[in-house]
Amino acid sequence: MVRGRREKAGEPLFRRVAVVGVGLIGGSLAAACRKRGLVETLVGFDVDPAALQEAITLGLVDEAGGDAATVAAGADLTVLAVPVGALEGVAAAIAPALGPAAVVTDVGSVKGALVSRLEARLPAGRYVPAHPIAGREFSGPAAAAASLFEGARCVLTPTPRTDRQALAQIRRLWEEVGAVVETMDPEEHDVIFAAVSHLPHAVAYALMNAMLDLKAEGRDVLPYSAGGLRDFTRVAASDPSMWRDIFLANRPALLDALRGFRAALARVEAALTAGDGAALWAECDRARRVRRGLL
Amino acid sequence: MVRGRREKAGEPLFRRVAVVGVGLIGGSLAAACRKRGLVETLVGFDVDPAALQEAITLGLVDEAGGDAATVAAGADLTVLAVPVGALEGVAAAIAPALGPAAVVTDVGSVKGALVSRLEARLPAGRYVPAHPIAGREFSGPAAAAASLFEGARCVLTPTPRTDRQALAQIRRLWEEVGAVVETMDPEEHDVIFAAVSHLPHAVAYALMNAMLDLKAEGRDVLPYSAGGLRDFTRVAASDPSMWRDIFLANRPALLDALRGFRAALARVEAALTAGDGAALWAECDRARRVRRGLL
Repeated sequence: MVRGRREKAGEPLFRRVAVVGVGLIGGSLAAACRKRGLVETLVGFDVDPAALQEAITLGLVDEAGGDAATVAAGADLTVLAVPVGALEGVAAAIAPALGPAAVVTDVGSVKGALVSRLEARLPAGRYVPAHPIAGREFSGPAAAAASLFEGARCVLTPTPRTDRQALAQIRRLWEEVGAVVETMDPEEHDVIFAAVSHLPHAVAYALMNAMLDLKAEGRDVLPYSAGGLRDFTRVAASDPSMWRDIFLANRPALLDALRGFRAALARVEAALTAGDGAALWAECDRARRVRRGLL
Repeated sequence: MVRGRREKAGEPLFRRVAVVGVGLIGGSLAAACRKRGLVETLVGFDVDPAALQEAITLGLVDEAGGDAATVAAGADLTVLAVPVGALEGVAAAIAPALGPAAVVTDVGSVKGALVSRLEARLPAGRYVPAHPIAGREFSGPAAAAASLFEGARCVLTPTPRTDRQALAQIRRLWEEVGAVVETMDPEEHDVIFAAVSHLPHAVAYALMNAMLDLKAEGRDVLPYSAGGLRDFTRVAASDPSMWRDIFLANRPALLDALRGFRAALARVEAALTAGDGAALWAECDRARRVRRGLL
């Protein structure tokens, strides 16, 4: 067995890991687990047979199963790496197949009420909610990379029901693949990610559609865009079904964030309407300082 | 004299070129002119003495002048590469110093009514409005590059008053430095760039400020941003004074574009409020197809 850069352990963290959903995140976690020698056997399932075959061909998983329950049976860890909108259904499907010591985790970018719904479906305390902050606009197993989580944050959102030993195992898993792990409340998670992730995606989609509306008036404006717009809207290339589900799952926090954004936009618009250069400058300067804080 | 990749001409296009404003665009045009052997002598002025000294040190210009009128006197081409808000004042300052055959051009990202105001300041027909579509979030002479315009678009917005020979010279200048040149009406230019450039900047500034407002509620949300937000808001790092002036100069078209954007955002918000997954998916999918058309 290849141990990779792992030094501390004498044994792998898990004997048999089931990855349900072998796309970018599931496939990358599988690749990272293999590279670091964290698991003995990786077994995968995906609703897309071509993706599952590709994951086998690429060596991301060792075995393919016929459905989610089949791969979860006998696994000491099952990773739910399916879109947010599919999580609850998959949890319900695998629950009867899970062994008594099995741990279940996910990689969903919405927590909050969704965590409660998943807890209700799964054996008491055995589900550890997780959200690795890593993504690209590309998807599918071919985009997977063992290095995807190196230096990335991974937020765990345990509840009072979460088994502490299971939590420690999942923390260790993410630390071993290079992530910086922290824990927070599921609701706090959703407020933060509504702001820094879901809102920018909603804004990017709306901006692209505004361009199309202008285009529909007979002007083909898009060929005149420079680098700025292209960077700005890279996120709008993301999968529509995935983002529809994320938006719906985090509806209350995202609606709050949208209200905050509209208020900020209204300040810019009011300053512009009034021809108030000092107010416009102040808005732009404040924004630039925030932006620089990101770097 | 170095001719660079220029093959057609037996003589440089211009004998003496004055560059007023030796920042990113002015400095890059100077560097490109020199590299291609398009001019004999480059003389520069900048309101920032440090920038002017840096342009000399970097070899972007041969000589430095004490003010805009001084460098424009004796130049057969004067390039106004100052922020949009400073264009009219500089045009007024150089007008008395211009020789009878001198050509004046600019690089401003707003045209429309501003072109009329500049024409009123400058000798009849000798001003050729230009807008090279190239930029970075960095500014100043140190960011200048001779290659900046290679493959970039450059939009010329002549009016019925524009001298046709002067227009041909400026077209040739931009073609020689590698730009793809086209002409359009000044008002049409402003509608297009309100959509593809000024609107995205206004939205990026507002989004950054919305993040700061959320942060002010006691949550430090910014550390949780992933690549998406950072790309998205690269444009918000741009110079606040420059963008204040652009926003004000293109106020009517930008206000129209903001209305279009708000309508597109309202559609996303309405679908979210209603929990209408099909409508949300349609908005996201439409946007993704537009975005892909940009690539």
